[in-house]
Amino acid sequence: MDQQWVETMLGKLSQIGRGSQGVSRLAYSDADMNAKEFMVRIMRESGLTVRIDSIGNIIGRLDGVSPDASIVITGSHLDTVPDGGNYDGAVGIVGGLAAIKRLQALGPLNHPIELIIFAASESSRFGLMMLGSKSMAGMASRHTWSKAKDSSGISLPDVLQAKGFSLQELDQVSRVKENIKAFVELHIEQGTVLGKAKKQIGIIETVAAPTLIKVTINGEAGHTGAIPMEDRHDALVSAATIVLAVQSIALEQSHSGTAATVGKLITTPGTISVIPSQVELWIDLRGVDQENIIETIQEIKDAVSTIADEQETLVAIDMLFSEKPVQMDSYVTRMIETACIDENVSYKRMNSGGGHDAMNMAHLAPAGIIFIPCKDGISHSPREFAEPADIMKGIDILTKTLYELAK
Amino acid sequence: MDQQWVETMLGKLSQIGRGSQGVSRLAYSDADMNAKEFMVRIMRESGLTVRIDSIGNIIGRLDGVSPDASIVITGSHLDTVPDGGNYDGAVGIVGGLAAIKRLQALGPLNHPIELIIFAASESSRFGLMMLGSKSMAGMASRHTWSKAKDSSGISLPDVLQAKGFSLQELDQVSRVKENIKAFVELHIEQGTVLGKAKKQIGIIETVAAPTLIKVTINGEAGHTGAIPMEDRHDALVSAATIVLAVQSIALEQSHSGTAATVGKLITTPGTISVIPSQVELWIDLRGVDQENIIETIQEIKDAVSTIADEQETLVAIDMLFSEKPVQMDSYVTRMIETACIDENVSYKRMNSGGGHDAMNMAHLAPAGIIFIPCKDGISHSPREFAEPADIMKGIDILTKTLYELAK
Repeated sequence: MDQQWVETMLGKLSQIGRGSQGVSRLAYSDADMNAKEFMVRIMRESGLTVRIDSIGNIIGRLDGVSPDASIVITGSHLDTVPDGGNYDGAVGIVGGLAAIKRLQALGPLNHPIELIIFAASESSRFGLMMLGSKSMAGMASRHTWSKAKDSSGISLPDVLQAKGFSLQELDQVSRVKENIKAFVELHIEQGTVLGKAKKQIGIIETVAAPTLIKVTINGEAGHTGAIPMEDRHDALVSAATIVLAVQSIALEQSHSGTAATVGKLITTPGTISVIPSQVELWIDLRGVDQENIIETIQEIKDAVSTIADEQETLVAIDMLFSEKPVQMDSYVTRMIETACIDENVSYKRMNSGGGHDAMNMAHLAPAGIIFIPCKDGISHSPREFAEPADIMKGIDILTKTLYELAK
Repeated sequence: MDQQWVETMLGKLSQIGRGSQGVSRLAYSDADMNAKEFMVRIMRESGLTVRIDSIGNIIGRLDGVSPDASIVITGSHLDTVPDGGNYDGAVGIVGGLAAIKRLQALGPLNHPIELIIFAASESSRFGLMMLGSKSMAGMASRHTWSKAKDSSGISLPDVLQAKGFSLQELDQVSRVKENIKAFVELHIEQGTVLGKAKKQIGIIETVAAPTLIKVTINGEAGHTGAIPMEDRHDALVSAATIVLAVQSIALEQSHSGTAATVGKLITTPGTISVIPSQVELWIDLRGVDQENIIETIQEIKDAVSTIADEQETLVAIDMLFSEKPVQMDSYVTRMIETACIDENVSYKRMNSGGGHDAMNMAHLAPAGIIFIPCKDGISHSPREFAEPADIMKGIDILTKTLYELAK
């Protein structure tokens, strides 16, 4: 019965922000707000009381028997990358509500349960990730955030204001540690580990830390026909050398779970008859081993400097952010493991390469993450897909875990 | 006296389309049309009769003594690359008019003289170069042109229509061979040859042929944290390998005057947390030796295919255009050389790496190009600069050459 409900909900969400190439619900876009509005209505129809905080987090609450008992929370996000899929984030929201509806059917539990749709989890729009859960955990960087702009040049404060939110009241967004018992997030893996190991559930031990490094290469513009090859300072040639150096360094460190990617690269002036005078590129580095992360960052910095020297181009390196890996709570993790064993579901303890809101919630309360497989490890793509059977297994384990925490 | 006039005219033109980074007068933009309107007024004030053809070429005419004598033409362009300079093109227009004003002062010559401002010479907007002179030489590709779009998705036919032009009447744009005696273009070098050789004038023997190859690389999107390095098909890594292969192949062929550049590269989706699924890049190849051009194109194609195979990414290669080098006329060239000798101006016979409208006019009439040095060979950049004294030397040689042709 509720498998059909879950599929219907995911199907309806997939239509919000759908373009020819995939689902695009950039943080605070109309599509993002429409998806949240849709879920708020469903949450209210399901008997939850819903409030929205001033950064845009949506908090749906199912009361428990004792009003003063600490809260058990599940949640994820509904914003997406541009041309993304319909499972990253959405599975945790629809699955979280499905789990709460099941618990609701059992009659009131001792603890209240909340479902949170975190605001602006993806970094695609402002280059800042997980604004909602960071604010909730008291980890907001109001100064940096107030200066952030999207690719159209619209500032985050202006975007927030247009949607009725603000960076001025983040104190009211942050939650009190003592009031929260635990946080559990259900999410697709976005990788190939579960598929390769043929396991139904991933139980996360460590969430990789993201580091973002911006590299700006300044060469010299010139006519592509008139400047001899040997007299050039082509910024894109230096940039290409850096892209390959990052790839090669990350491949060598891959055994430690470290990965590095240049996902965004902008060539100026970017026209066919002009030698590129400037390239900006962003290196996204993730790892679970802090020592290895530091070593890899240093290797990349050294390589960039060497390339700049060799090619006589000016290079600036900006460390935009560099976070530390976050351990999930061993008690919550064991509770998820017990649920898998009780339900006879195959599982694997593993790390998460992607960042999740649970990273920030871990600063507020014992936290855990339940992964389900996704097809070929593809996410952030229109081809992102999770089998309904796998989603339902994830909901089973989430339900059982929330029950044990809230009973 | 006329040096001040030339500097004033160039100064006024430099204000039309000026932004914080340079001069931007993309083909058929308002700035481009404003610059042309300004010059039309000056041409009329100088006593030329001016007409505009249906692709947007502006033709200013100074009558000669015998109305049936074949026409001597000089000309260049006023459109620019984005954030370009104020000398590429403009020197040939302002210098051409200055030369005609000097000849006018001598009293009527036998042949009529025309100054042409060619439409859409730069390829930056539509990926198509020299629409005006191609149309005039009967070399228009109406089918290809009618499908061209700029980066905002506006089609060339729509842009033309908005400005009162059309691809429907190109027959009226093309000129009759027998009516034209010769064409001479004055232009900045856009390279470092004259500066290094310490020569005041470059006399062009061969104009390099431009080839434009579009390469589309299809990899696989995925989460930057969750897909292990060794499981990736990162389109930008393949693209970077191609950029470096193009650079390396072109460096080896540089002795033959061949150059190749990736000036435009677009990463999709182009966000920091997603492995690039697609990269489009454009290889701009120029050469004066047709055999060497063909060999270089083949080497680049082979390298691209090998890289695609090795990195297991799908690659499509589109040859957007490939032209042949064009010889300037030996009679006109010798006439320019004689002018240099008579005026005691140092000169160098050389090739032009950049394409010029004279390439197309050479199909209609004996053609020649006069180069003047530009600072550090920089063009297509806000830092583009030509010394007033060098511009005046160029005008002296152009005046003398036009006089010999038109007398």
